Amino acid sequence: MRFFSKAPALLLTAATLALAVPAAAQDLAGGAAAIRDKALTDQTAWSVAESLTTEVGPRMVGSQGMERARDWAVAKLKELGFENVRVESFTTSAWSRGAESVEVVGPWPIKLQALGLGGSASTPAGGVTAPIVLFTSYQAMLDQPPGALAGKIAVVTQKMGRTQDGSSYGAVGVQRRAGAVEAAKRGAVGYLIRSISTDDTRLPHTGGGAPATIPAAALSTPDADLLENMVRRGRPVTVRMAMTSSVNPKAQAWNISGEIRGREAPDEVIVVGGHLDSWDPGTGAVDDAAGIAITTAAAKLVAQAGPPRRTIRVVMWGSEEQGGSSEAYAAAHKDEAPRIVVAGESDSGAGRIWTINLPRAGSDHAAMKAFRASLPPLKVAVSPAAPAFGGADIRGLIGLGAPFVDFGQDASRYFDLHHSADDTLDKIDPAELAQNVAVWASFLYTVANSDVDFRSKPAS
Amino acid sequence: MRFFSKAPALLLTAATLALAVPAAAQDLAGGAAAIRDKALTDQTAWSVAESLTTEVGPRMVGSQGMERARDWAVAKLKELGFENVRVESFTTSAWSRGAESVEVVGPWPIKLQALGLGGSASTPAGGVTAPIVLFTSYQAMLDQPPGALAGKIAVVTQKMGRTQDGSSYGAVGVQRRAGAVEAAKRGAVGYLIRSISTDDTRLPHTGGGAPATIPAAALSTPDADLLENMVRRGRPVTVRMAMTSSVNPKAQAWNISGEIRGREAPDEVIVVGGHLDSWDPGTGAVDDAAGIAITTAAAKLVAQAGPPRRTIRVVMWGSEEQGGSSEAYAAAHKDEAPRIVVAGESDSGAGRIWTINLPRAGSDHAAMKAFRASLPPLKVAVSPAAPAFGGADIRGLIGLGAPFVDFGQDASRYFDLHHSADDTLDKIDPAELAQNVAVWASFLYTVANSDVDFRSKPAS
Repeated sequence: MRFFSKAPALLLTAATLALAVPAAAQDLAGGAAAIRDKALTDQTAWSVAESLTTEVGPRMVGSQGMERARDWAVAKLKELGFENVRVESFTTSAWSRGAESVEVVGPWPIKLQALGLGGSASTPAGGVTAPIVLFTSYQAMLDQPPGALAGKIAVVTQKMGRTQDGSSYGAVGVQRRAGAVEAAKRGAVGYLIRSISTDDTRLPHTGGGAPATIPAAALSTPDADLLENMVRRGRPVTVRMAMTSSVNPKAQAWNISGEIRGREAPDEVIVVGGHLDSWDPGTGAVDDAAGIAITTAAAKLVAQAGPPRRTIRVVMWGSEEQGGSSEAYAAAHKDEAPRIVVAGESDSGAGRIWTINLPRAGSDHAAMKAFRASLPPLKVAVSPAAPAFGGADIRGLIGLGAPFVDFGQDASRYFDLHHSADDTLDKIDPAELAQNVAVWASFLYTVANSDVDFRSKPAS
Repeated sequence: MRFFSKAPALLLTAATLALAVPAAAQDLAGGAAAIRDKALTDQTAWSVAESLTTEVGPRMVGSQGMERARDWAVAKLKELGFENVRVESFTTSAWSRGAESVEVVGPWPIKLQALGLGGSASTPAGGVTAPIVLFTSYQAMLDQPPGALAGKIAVVTQKMGRTQDGSSYGAVGVQRRAGAVEAAKRGAVGYLIRSISTDDTRLPHTGGGAPATIPAAALSTPDADLLENMVRRGRPVTVRMAMTSSVNPKAQAWNISGEIRGREAPDEVIVVGGHLDSWDPGTGAVDDAAGIAITTAAAKLVAQAGPPRRTIRVVMWGSEEQGGSSEAYAAAHKDEAPRIVVAGESDSGAGRIWTINLPRAGSDHAAMKAFRASLPPLKVAVSPAAPAFGGADIRGLIGLGAPFVDFGQDASRYFDLHHSADDTLDKIDPAELAQNVAVWASFLYTVANSDVDFRSKPAS
């Protein structure tokens, strides 16, 4: 049965049902408030994040770490009481780092702190040694005609700004994602970028780039500054890149899930989660042990409040960083897609949620009213806009028509850590983590214990 | 001639001298204020620090970097107009880093971010693999009886607190300086510490330890946390250390100096400076390009104000980190020691000076009154206490009876960077650097242009 229907319809219902509604609505609001408050002191999320980062650590697709992560995920979901724990295999292309060295050979020799970008080519034995051409903006490199960088190592040192919503990642990140291919088109024999980072540590930030024919690496931000200072002197600066890597085009990967089964409408499924894989330099704490911890803990809290009406499924996607898990998940769940109530992913770290985008449909439903009513103590603003991006791993489901939400986390500090060795457990603030759990738990509780339909037309 | 004598004596002087004094005192105060203000916008210190970190970078005693630093120092002092540029050779024991690797091999394998400590022994080929015994306080390890650590790798994870005066370095630093020897006494086959660091980056902080018979390394603070979290699980944790290093007992080193020659009393010498050598992971910006830059720029500003009465000598000591420069300098300047007016070293980074300790003798002299009068706009407090420590490189001179000063820099952030890869130019705040120059320039100006005697008894 449906708990609620839209207000105009409600006026036409029988008296018994009309009487039932306010009580149920009150239950939902009260339940959401209660689960929110419980989440703020619950230790599950911290425990999950601590466990994954301590017992597994780095987990690149195709690595032994990822195999350990798979076993960890299955054991953890079972330990926490999830049902239907499933390991869904797929294959994807996996780039793996080998030995790497980037150094200035003259006129002022120094070893640079650098990390190869995913997709980087290996250098010949002995490396590539070439003069650099430095651009302080990515556009300035793009403005070079074909051949202009022949025999040179192109260096782009465009800086990333600190933003609460992380929007600078999309703008500046292109120099990482596409730059090596563009540099190669113009004749470059190597490509270096200032890390996509808002921090000033000497730790470079890796990340995926397009598969390139030339070696590509990210410099720590102080090393990018150093090259700028050298170039400013007007003498040719020569850099040597010696890098090895390998690509497995069919690496084994896994999307792993567990469910809190619904008691009334078990086939109506709420799909939430984070991604299990990580880049290699850190222990993948904020990216994305946090997301796994948050959504797992939130679902667990809903289960503890009593079996929900609908099913909540937590998915630990297996290849977000190098891609493939979204497509694999969508392919495996195509038939189920019409019954997916809503999808959501937590994948912007452990900073507190400050803004929420909900589907317009369903916004007048008492469940969403109860959810929104639970938010003021958490200092979350609900945006009037529909969500634009729910997370890389649910894009496939969205393509199948699944409604989705976007919970905007404060990303002010996220890009200090993201894809670097600094992505470690100590960077997670337990109180901020708990605030995330509270928001997700309230959302899951109200959706799972109602019949809110995010596919229906907006009430207005 | 003496510009000033003590106040009681002044009352007895001839009218012409009595008339001259206030004018000269006014000149000193005015000159100090003028040079202070000029220093706040002067770019020399930044330029020197930028040059040393960009064109030389890391400069361990015994390395090629140190040879380049020597040539840089000579050229820079000459370029800035210093006279009597001298390179004083000495030899000292120099430890050099080789290949290093520290990893947890079980039960949860992960590579740890670690740096060998100066004095660390090499491991046998293949490394040392052993279970760890972890102590969260250094004292707890010291409390172990002989043999208690037999066959184990001892790990000390005591944390360092953040202090403005850097006093926690002395307290916690002992686990780095002496711990490997103490661990070996108790049977340990390896020694690991939490870096002597106030930061949470994944960059370990190296530094000198006593020459040890076992391998010794510093973990980044998140890696120390990780080991604590592993140990808390109650299962034995096994670590492998594979480290190589070498020691040159007679490495060539150099104390390099240049002078602003005094016009009236050239043999009365004010000795100030910083140290030229650095540890290897960073570019030695705050430790101690900053100190060299500050004192060099301050002396240069005094010269620009007109030839001073006394000589100012800037010394770039050549082996502070591994020791030897203080002793070598004192030995070479023993005969000159009675004519050293005052000695000072800038070696606590580039944080602003917040407190000053001056010799009690001379405090009533008009020169010191003029100096103190210049300080309020710089937000510097003059401590009533005499200086206790002026810097490692002037200890030899102090032992010879040279008066000395101690300008306390705000060290709140210093130990985020100290001895780590993060010690790079971008960590120097140009405004804070300039404040240091202003204090030193005012001090050098008033001392060099007066006859203040820091050896005489206090006026009271």
